[in-house]
Amino acid sequence: MQPPPHESEKNLGLERLIFFSDAVFAIAITLLVLQIQLPANAVFPGALSDVLPEIGAYILSFFVIGAYWIAHHRFYQHIIRFDNRLLWLNLLLLLFVAFIPFPTRAIAEYGDAQAVVILYAATIALTGLIMLLTCWYAASRHRLIEPDLDADFIKWIYVRHLLIPVVFLASIGVSFIDPQDKGPQLARAIWYLAALVVVFTSARPLRRQKRQAQD
Amino acid sequence: MQPPPHESEKNLGLERLIFFSDAVFAIAITLLVLQIQLPANAVFPGALSDVLPEIGAYILSFFVIGAYWIAHHRFYQHIIRFDNRLLWLNLLLLLFVAFIPFPTRAIAEYGDAQAVVILYAATIALTGLIMLLTCWYAASRHRLIEPDLDADFIKWIYVRHLLIPVVFLASIGVSFIDPQDKGPQLARAIWYLAALVVVFTSARPLRRQKRQAQD
Amino acid sequence: MQPPPHESEKNLGLERLIFFSDAVFAIAITLLVLQIQLPANAVFPGALSDVLPEIGAYILSFFVIGAYWIAHHRFYQHIIRFDNRLLWLNLLLLLFVAFIPFPTRAIAEYGDAQAVVILYAATIALTGLIMLLTCWYAASRHRLIEPDLDADFIKWIYVRHLLIPVVFLASIGVSFIDPQDKGPQLARAIWYLAALVVVFTSARPLRRQKRQAQD
Amino acid sequence: MQPPPHESEKNLGLERLIFFSDAVFAIAITLLVLQIQLPANAVFPGALSDVLPEIGAYILSFFVIGAYWIAHHRFYQHIIRFDNRLLWLNLLLLLFVAFIPFPTRAIAEYGDAQAVVILYAATIALTGLIMLLTCWYAASRHRLIEPDLDADFIKWIYVRHLLIPVVFLASIGVSFIDPQDKGPQLARAIWYLAALVVVFTSARPLRRQKRQAQD
Repeated sequence: MQPPPHESEKNLGLERLIFFSDAVFAIAITLLVLQIQLPANAVFPGALSDVLPEIGAYILSFFVIGAYWIAHHRFYQHIIRFDNRLLWLNLLLLLFVAFIPFPTRAIAEYGDAQAVVILYAATIALTGLIMLLTCWYAASRHRLIEPDLDADFIKWIYVRHLLIPVVFLASIGVSFIDPQDKGPQLARAIWYLAALVVVFTSARPLRRQKRQAQD
Repeated sequence: MQPPPHESEKNLGLERLIFFSDAVFAIAITLLVLQIQLPANAVFPGALSDVLPEIGAYILSFFVIGAYWIAHHRFYQHIIRFDNRLLWLNLLLLLFVAFIPFPTRAIAEYGDAQAVVILYAATIALTGLIMLLTCWYAASRHRLIEPDLDADFIKWIYVRHLLIPVVFLASIGVSFIDPQDKGPQLARAIWYLAALVVVFTSARPLRRQKRQAQD
Repeated sequence: MQPPPHESEKNLGLERLIFFSDAVFAIAITLLVLQIQLPANAVFPGALSDVLPEIGAYILSFFVIGAYWIAHHRFYQHIIRFDNRLLWLNLLLLLFVAFIPFPTRAIAEYGDAQAVVILYAATIALTGLIMLLTCWYAASRHRLIEPDLDADFIKWIYVRHLLIPVVFLASIGVSFIDPQDKGPQLARAIWYLAALVVVFTSARPLRRQKRQAQD
Repeated sequence: MQPPPHESEKNLGLERLIFFSDAVFAIAITLLVLQIQLPANAVFPGALSDVLPEIGAYILSFFVIGAYWIAHHRFYQHIIRFDNRLLWLNLLLLLFVAFIPFPTRAIAEYGDAQAVVILYAATIALTGLIMLLTCWYAASRHRLIEPDLDADFIKWIYVRHLLIPVVFLASIGVSFIDPQDKGPQLARAIWYLAALVVVFTSARPLRRQKRQAQD
């Protein structure tokens, strides 16, 4: 019943780790707006339709970072301790999350260039794969998670975390169909579809958990 | 008396949700200052009067985001659990909050263009309506709020949350009176008035609560 | 011994208020660095001496915002509840704190213009006066502070909080001695001196407190 | 067993200090991305290789700030109280941490200029030395740390905190070998190596602690 020595400090440490991650997610997601810029000497209402691609990129990246934050938020509820490797893995994840505003600006301005489409899709996919790696590191052999966490639930998380990376990697392939013209547009259309799918299917693991809690 | 299993984790989850929201509000409100820019090779004191519209837009948006933060802060004191939909509704709200610096910059630079007036008013109004939707989702059938929260108090919150959206939508109508000349100015005057009204009438729901607590 | 109903929620409310304030202070203080810009096609090491005024302004504003944060930090340790007016007073304070990066940029680029010196000094002084007003509102008749907080300690806080505003208002007067030439330089020299004085005299109230605690 | 009066408030104060520091670290680390800018009218894929030095500088500074945050995170787990001097020492540390985005931008754009190499290395080294000074101030005569913290562990922290400053100061010396040509490149190569060493050797003190806990 009594906490082992240093237990509360360890929790404080885990809290700071979560807090720091939340802050980086929140700052990255809010910095996205800085990339939406009106041209000098804008004439209205025409100038507003010029910034539509930038607003589209803002919304897309907002939902991608938001989805990763929700996944992080959800998974860390099951983490009960941390070690040095998790600290650095998490920092690597944040390196990618904090980087997303750059490809977002690139896609807003040069969304028809295949190189930019690849840059954006690769950044999002890699972010998701590092997220998956973090989950795998923490969950395998219940290294850092609750001892009674269900194996099926863990598998579900793995599958779920593969969704975004797989779709974005596939979109890179799609962009090669017609790299100079329709390819990049197709890839971008896939991303928006994927974001919608993520939002409308994200309820399930939570329901699963509830069912488990009721058993 | 003993918390049900996973209760403390759920609270931690709600805390992180609130924390993340606070961080996005705080960053969006502080980024507003970046849009105030002195012209190159400024001559003083003339250059200071040139930035007056930008300072005005800064103050207006600061109070609007601040008012939404206070409303968020106040309403979430009554939320006792969260679900997947609240997570995404809240993320949608933050998408709009984090977007506000863009129309603020637009209004500071091109405040006399009706299209920009509509952009600003629509952004603020939509933010408020999503806030209202969040409240309605959490409060209807006491889905996520305290079971003993007074129905009158909930109605009060709904009315209160309609105030800013109604005024800003009305200002769009007003801007059509004389869209090329006085309309945008009139709309902007209404906003500043609305901000003052919000500040000086916001005390009431809190007093209500206190009266309830005293009963 | 049992907390009154809603007490913990009120504390959560106060915690969020403090947290939100901390976040705005932290963002404003960190955004200061964005104003330090190398010229295009810089030649070194000359370009580094060109940014010295910007680095000076960065350090000055960092210590001013830092000193206000420490004062906020210290005073809010004695606040035990909040009301609607404190929320808005605090928001007004944050409006000024978040604004400081703008006059900082102005002083870095146009530090010899008297209008800019007045803008900077007035911003800092007003920030301090609103801080003082907040303290007075919370402390007078022990409205929101600990009931046993010493009257002498409160007076000390008032005097202490007047220090920065008085010095910065005085520097405005000094700038009128020779407004086209030496006046602005003199005013700026006073600010740096004031910052040093604030740092090296800030220990006292804490020691006072300790002495009180030992009695 | 009963906490001394004001104890919980002191803890709240320490928590706010840690929180404020975390926020500044998080903002500084996330602002780094703003310095990665595509040229106007970029042509792809060439433009992507043009931003490679900026991405390199982003990664380097991300890991340096991250390493300092982890060190801060780890050391503050052993701090049990704070005083006025720690507040100001910590603020001085944050002044340097928040400054890092500026030399990062400089190194990304002018990485071959020796003056910029010195600016970057000196900033990183000074940040580390102030970190060391903070540790020394808190740990010497167990002023602010846990009374039972092992003297060997404290020594280990001192040595550990010297690593980054020593390497970056050494790199300044190396840059003088061939200041107009290969010197700056060599210095930069040393930094990346140092970052890798920091990541892969950081596990030890934690293991040490665990061993101590097991004794």
